[in-house]
Amino acid sequence: MRYELFYWPSIQGRGEFVRLALEEAGADYVDVARQPASAGGGIRAMMRMLDDKSAVQRPFAPPFLRAGRQVIAQTANILHFLGPRLALAPKSDAGRLWVHQLQLTLADLLVEVHDTHHPIASSLYYEDQKPEAQRRTGNFIEERAPKYLGYFENVLAASRSRAGWVVASGFSYIDLSLFQLVAGLHYAFPQAMKRSRRQYPRLMALHDRVAARPRIAAYLGSPRRIAFNESGIFRHYPELDA
Amino acid sequence: MRYELFYWPSIQGRGEFVRLALEEAGADYVDVARQPASAGGGIRAMMRMLDDKSAVQRPFAPPFLRAGRQVIAQTANILHFLGPRLALAPKSDAGRLWVHQLQLTLADLLVEVHDTHHPIASSLYYEDQKPEAQRRTGNFIEERAPKYLGYFENVLAASRSRAGWVVASGFSYIDLSLFQLVAGLHYAFPQAMKRSRRQYPRLMALHDRVAARPRIAAYLGSPRRIAFNESGIFRHYPELDA
Repeated sequence: MRYELFYWPSIQGRGEFVRLALEEAGADYVDVARQPASAGGGIRAMMRMLDDKSAVQRPFAPPFLRAGRQVIAQTANILHFLGPRLALAPKSDAGRLWVHQLQLTLADLLVEVHDTHHPIASSLYYEDQKPEAQRRTGNFIEERAPKYLGYFENVLAASRSRAGWVVASGFSYIDLSLFQLVAGLHYAFPQAMKRSRRQYPRLMALHDRVAARPRIAAYLGSPRRIAFNESGIFRHYPELDA
Repeated sequence: MRYELFYWPSIQGRGEFVRLALEEAGADYVDVARQPASAGGGIRAMMRMLDDKSAVQRPFAPPFLRAGRQVIAQTANILHFLGPRLALAPKSDAGRLWVHQLQLTLADLLVEVHDTHHPIASSLYYEDQKPEAQRRTGNFIEERAPKYLGYFENVLAASRSRAGWVVASGFSYIDLSLFQLVAGLHYAFPQAMKRSRRQYPRLMALHDRVAARPRIAAYLGSPRRIAFNESGIFRHYPELDA
């Protein structure tokens, strides 16, 4: 099965969680919007699907995945679908739901990360909501990030996995997603993470072990990995990290 | 199977989406935090589970559901689990994923509704973030709500359901959730909804038909239905609706 991923071509964003799963599994996939328009790619190919109002199952927003005749949107939903197909999820229904639950919790945190630089409106520039961003980021660093990271640290502590992964049955996509979360927070808030990272030893170790997995290491060193930048979810504005 | 729902006892909030599904199905359930402490209920029973750091599958936040030995959190995940058990979801895997995807899109909108009155921090009072709330709500009413509601209206238009439900296979929990969304928006923003509701005839008709379903009508008229109030997600602050 060749998977087609549709996502913005110049950012990691939410699509990166899907890219990481496809890369780790060595799956056959195309990152459609990053292909030339002459090969049926480009943003226009993505927008055509988003704008096709006759489609019964039209996505609300990227990322979405085409798998044969199915089109699936919502990052966590895509991973829930891909998990068993890529051998990146527990086999039991209960295990799959648990990993999905964690991914949804992580998705909630991502919204809060995004809103540190866009607390008023996504359609406005950061520069047009700087005082609000400063206030919101302060609260994020003081309260929200520690609440979520403390939770994930504790999930790792309570896990019965002997290998230090989130679930006892083995490596899964939530390990990849936590890697991406830790990497993104370090990019966006290096000072805050430097101060706090000692409180999350399991999460930090998980990040390092995921980064060292052969396929992930190869991916991170390849041009397929888009660099973090100030158009994505994790943005580095030094004044917010101060 | 007796289901135990754990959620804040004095608000509709996210728990209401689960309550509606349980009520529509006539399921055997207990709303644990609304039971007296002497009967093992109350907020304390809920907090005990949230605070139990030794639990391998501890929820991050309410609502969560106990079904036998399983504890499931994240509203959309709970509905994804309950859907087939309560005959409120399509039978096919693809159909279940589609309904779940819509519920996740609705969940994204709920965060934005919440942030109209709390754009800076959940831990601060609304009164401490009023100018920001005014700005964010303006954008919500002008841009965000129309984008989401237009999307859901179009999903109904593109659906092959002859009965006017979201999916062709029949009534499902996403119909209940859209009812709750429309009801909540009318409560929070009566002026804005009065101006715009004509643009969403299918959604409005869906709301009315769900409200008239015998079990939902009975529930809405019972003391089990908590009234909308200014502690929940949908809050009516006239100055924001102006």
